[in-house]
Amino acid sequence: MSKKTIAVLGGTGNLGHALAWRWARAGYPVIIGSRTAEKAAAAAAQINARTGLQSATGTDNRAAVASAAIVVLAVPYAAHRDTLETVLPALSGQIVVDTTVPLRPPKVSTVQLPAEGSAAVQTQACVAGRARVAAAFHNVAAGLLDTEAEIHCDVLVTADDVEARKEVMQLAEDAGCHALNAGVLANAAASEALTSVLIHINKTYKSGHAGIRITGL
Amino acid sequence: MSKKTIAVLGGTGNLGHALAWRWARAGYPVIIGSRTAEKAAAAAAQINARTGLQSATGTDNRAAVASAAIVVLAVPYAAHRDTLETVLPALSGQIVVDTTVPLRPPKVSTVQLPAEGSAAVQTQACVAGRARVAAAFHNVAAGLLDTEAEIHCDVLVTADDVEARKEVMQLAEDAGCHALNAGVLANAAASEALTSVLIHINKTYKSGHAGIRITGL
Repeated sequence: MSKKTIAVLGGTGNLGHALAWRWARAGYPVIIGSRTAEKAAAAAAQINARTGLQSATGTDNRAAVASAAIVVLAVPYAAHRDTLETVLPALSGQIVVDTTVPLRPPKVSTVQLPAEGSAAVQTQACVAGRARVAAAFHNVAAGLLDTEAEIHCDVLVTADDVEARKEVMQLAEDAGCHALNAGVLANAAASEALTSVLIHINKTYKSGHAGIRITGL
Repeated sequence: MSKKTIAVLGGTGNLGHALAWRWARAGYPVIIGSRTAEKAAAAAAQINARTGLQSATGTDNRAAVASAAIVVLAVPYAAHRDTLETVLPALSGQIVVDTTVPLRPPKVSTVQLPAEGSAAVQTQACVAGRARVAAAFHNVAAGLLDTEAEIHCDVLVTADDVEARKEVMQLAEDAGCHALNAGVLANAAASEALTSVLIHINKTYKSGHAGIRITGL
């Protein structure tokens, strides 16, 4: 069975780029999305050079979404709503994987969840039935994902749609991570909030790559 | 230096009882608080029988608070506000350690944080300067704490007051847990939310004692 095409919006940023590279390496066709198609194409070329494959392409965010079955949202929180509104007309049944952490600079080590409960729930309200929304990858350090390093951080995957949750857990595994079923989309509040705690811990304990692991399983 | 007296409100419940026993064993004078002094006294007698010490006593919640330097709030969320209001007149400079997880049955495996952001922040608003509030112990399984088992779950400790945070980290270590400085009190949202995820994971992966560990340190 051929692998589904993954669009990574914000694929020129640290997390998006690292995930796109890992999926390209695992044999997925990857489309890098960006506000400017040129930057996206340059990022795709970098990934192809690194994998030795020609499986990554780059284009603007909306065109990327139109050609993909999986849409990974990896833009900063400040660009979250705008990006969603831009791609909305191109959404029709895809799975949207929201990686957004609602950080509000300068207090990035303080949890400041939105009134809706989480960025993921905001996304679900915004796409309003045009796509199934899952959330994941909030706690994995992009700097680690971008290397050959083994990932010791569990990926908590949440979604209301059970099939979407399963597919995204598989995507996380294919990116070399250990995925866990963390329940309904509202539970993304936990992993989104944890990121500020990890930022605080990185600063306090002089680590660069704090993550989490579920114990007792 | 003699150890500070710890009042455990809800010390007749699973988590409170287990913590009180661990602290009694570690040499702390412990006062079990309950709505009824008789139940509290019975729980204290159990703890004394188990430790072989006479360091635990039991009384009603307000009297317990009046005699303690540390007040641990370990009541169900439904009793959270009432308990705080009952003991409010007895608060004057103590450290309040809030262990409350804002679970709303029947959906206990769905994150449902209060509008204020967390139970801990609600507590801080309620005590309004009469005590310094810290939050901890949301993710440790009471069933494990109540045994001699080694605890593999990290305890995330949050507080705005840096000294209170440090003291509560020491209390967690003295209860046989590994404590981590998790930042300001607002960050309790992360550990409170995580509990619903852990309940979901316990159910999904047939575990009884899922916990978390911070990796990458």
